[in-house]
Amino acid sequence: MEIKVLKDILSANDQIAQRNRELLNSKGVFTVNVMASPGAGKTSLILQTIKSLKGKIKIGVIEGDIRSSIDAELINKDGTPVVQINTGGECHLDANMIANALGNVPLQDIELLIIENVGNLVCPAEFDVGVHKRVVIASTPEGDDKPFKYPLMFDVVDAVLINKIDLLPYLNFDMDAFSRAIKGMNEKAEIFPVSCTTGEGIEQWTSWLLAQMGRG
Amino acid sequence: MEIKVLKDILSANDQIAQRNRELLNSKGVFTVNVMASPGAGKTSLILQTIKSLKGKIKIGVIEGDIRSSIDAELINKDGTPVVQINTGGECHLDANMIANALGNVPLQDIELLIIENVGNLVCPAEFDVGVHKRVVIASTPEGDDKPFKYPLMFDVVDAVLINKIDLLPYLNFDMDAFSRAIKGMNEKAEIFPVSCTTGEGIEQWTSWLLAQMGRG
Repeated sequence: MEIKVLKDILSANDQIAQRNRELLNSKGVFTVNVMASPGAGKTSLILQTIKSLKGKIKIGVIEGDIRSSIDAELINKDGTPVVQINTGGECHLDANMIANALGNVPLQDIELLIIENVGNLVCPAEFDVGVHKRVVIASTPEGDDKPFKYPLMFDVVDAVLINKIDLLPYLNFDMDAFSRAIKGMNEKAEIFPVSCTTGEGIEQWTSWLLAQMGRG
Repeated sequence: MEIKVLKDILSANDQIAQRNRELLNSKGVFTVNVMASPGAGKTSLILQTIKSLKGKIKIGVIEGDIRSSIDAELINKDGTPVVQINTGGECHLDANMIANALGNVPLQDIELLIIENVGNLVCPAEFDVGVHKRVVIASTPEGDDKPFKYPLMFDVVDAVLINKIDLLPYLNFDMDAFSRAIKGMNEKAEIFPVSCTTGEGIEQWTSWLLAQMGRG
């Protein structure tokens, strides 16, 4: 009897992630996983993105939090469809959580799905949840040394948003050093300095997003 | 034959944590676990604490990072003994990592050991590493909703430091709401508004620390 050699077996997570991506592709829904430290501005970025793309792109959101639905309520205020995942302690979203959430997202009515991960620069970087692009938000008050300390996160993403640039006058944050550090570990990462408070830089970010969707 | 019923068996982690604490007690070393989001100001707080207690208390530091020794080098500059733990991917310190590090800390020469955990508001809260007090730093740019989103962290700590109060004029941060949220989930937690940039509030924090050590 011939012995079967199974090659490139995906982990359970990666298999489910692949199925999520196939489902999203079949519905024509482009999906982005937004990761960051607690308080870096994930929800604010999503709100600014919805505002900037209003009338152009129909958006849905999956909110990941350990507990609470504060952010989901904020996003739902203007009518954007939101599904809340409460991980109950888990420090990241995984593909199975997203698979379960997708059943409650009106995929036929949206073109862009934004997933807000749990606030954490470590574990979320380890899990493909079945998206098309991954981005991280680094905020200026966190300091310009973060790429060196959380290298996997800055390595896996397609884009880095540097948020809270409105606070730069009050901080010691070296934008050039930060950008060089990112490029040193991830040459292809796009970098977008933004302020979700003033709206500065948001259009560059959403233009890039539209281009990734083939809608540029 | 009588069947032995083993009660209250500690997890491997908690057993090692207990042994760490016994070792530290036998050497008369008071130990604090400092936790926070990335960039909230853990290293800056440690530097300010060392400065404030100079000549009063002999301090050693264990630095926890996924990779890099940037912070350890900074702390070692003035001669403070530092041991660096690189977790290589793990998002928290555990008791066994600390047990291994303690062998390299000059316990006979110090009275206070400060442990800087990995930047993360989730997993570090789940692990007793064998310390006497646990504190979390929340920084004002992270927003005043953090206690609701990371409840375990704010529940397990003995004190909350609210850092970067020098940035308050430029932020929407409701100090009263934040303090009420903490007290609502952890009545006994001490709250210290500080700025590690200006030094404001540091003396209140170190006075409390000295009191905990029986040196008040």
